[in-house]
Amino acid sequence: MEKIRIITIGREYASGGRTVGKLISEKLGIPFYNKEILHMAAEKLNMSADDVKNADETAANSLLYSISLMNNLSSASSLPINDRIFIEEREVIKSLAEQGPCVIVGRCADSILKEIRDDVLNVFIYADSDARAKRAIDEYGESPDSVYASLRKHDKKRSTYYNLNTGQKWGAKDNYDLCLNSSKLGIEMCADLIIHTAANM
Amino acid sequence: MEKIRIITIGREYASGGRTVGKLISEKLGIPFYNKEILHMAAEKLNMSADDVKNADETAANSLLYSISLMNNLSSASSLPINDRIFIEEREVIKSLAEQGPCVIVGRCADSILKEIRDDVLNVFIYADSDARAKRAIDEYGESPDSVYASLRKHDKKRSTYYNLNTGQKWGAKDNYDLCLNSSKLGIEMCADLIIHTAANM
Repeated sequence: MEKIRIITIGREYASGGRTVGKLISEKLGIPFYNKEILHMAAEKLNMSADDVKNADETAANSLLYSISLMNNLSSASSLPINDRIFIEEREVIKSLAEQGPCVIVGRCADSILKEIRDDVLNVFIYADSDARAKRAIDEYGESPDSVYASLRKHDKKRSTYYNLNTGQKWGAKDNYDLCLNSSKLGIEMCADLIIHTAANM
Repeated sequence: MEKIRIITIGREYASGGRTVGKLISEKLGIPFYNKEILHMAAEKLNMSADDVKNADETAANSLLYSISLMNNLSSASSLPINDRIFIEEREVIKSLAEQGPCVIVGRCADSILKEIRDDVLNVFIYADSDARAKRAIDEYGESPDSVYASLRKHDKKRSTYYNLNTGQKWGAKDNYDLCLNSSKLGIEMCADLIIHTAANM
């Protein structure tokens, strides 16, 4: 095993996974990539922020279907926008991993890098529903009346995106090296455990 | 949150979960309970090792069904042996947790203690199939020809036992505070992460 250089973080909606990733990046002094990947992909496709804002982590088709479609089309630009963005995001993620140590949140980075690199630690952050609801209300300003439906809706969107693009099951622990319950362990502890693991593998 | 005193470890067959638990118990100098729980329960039921050897982590009925059955029978001794043992094991586990810090492997200890104690860290250890097959061959002397079938058979038995007795899903990460892939992290790292977590929560 090569020494770990890349940390990928999958996460349930409002589990604090993004915050864990940000904290790791600050503690280790390495870049943090989340929505930045979408913007880099959009730029490469000459698209504006408005063009891509609804395509973030949203799947249109299975990736294999899209690739086969692409082979039968005159150009990739005939593909649904979500698929064109995912294909470009995949290249951005590979390229960022080449550049040096970093933390990447979401966007199937675990699966994209698993086949090509041996220096990646794949983490999944989850939390109890009540703790997630509280975070969604407190930090994202969601309505208490609809917050549990919102958790389900966002998780469904993420799982569809992951499952269609990777052929694997989102959040299934077999896809990850460690899975941490942030509502039990706390954000700081999650970051510490991941840093300790990455440093000592 | 009270300081963690009890560590429970659920584990896939041949994932090394028992070894992780043993290592934690040695490093912390606290008792380790695995098959000992079965033997203590058997002793309380005046049963011999022979009587119970096939009942270890094997479910006959759902626990709720057995308890309702027990209420309609003249004595608990009319219950299937597996159920009588599980009911007794549950009491043994509660009593051991009362006595002081310890590591408990398997036997639904996470679920049994979750409702009554706030000082328990629940861990699940899993591993890639190939690593588990190697461990089953090297350490348990299993035949390479049938080892993958054996992994499935043992996991099925454990999941049935857990699911029927707890009403929860065995190995589903929501039941645990951290889930660790021992084939990626290594046994020693798993033990270290668990000890660090328990000491700092």
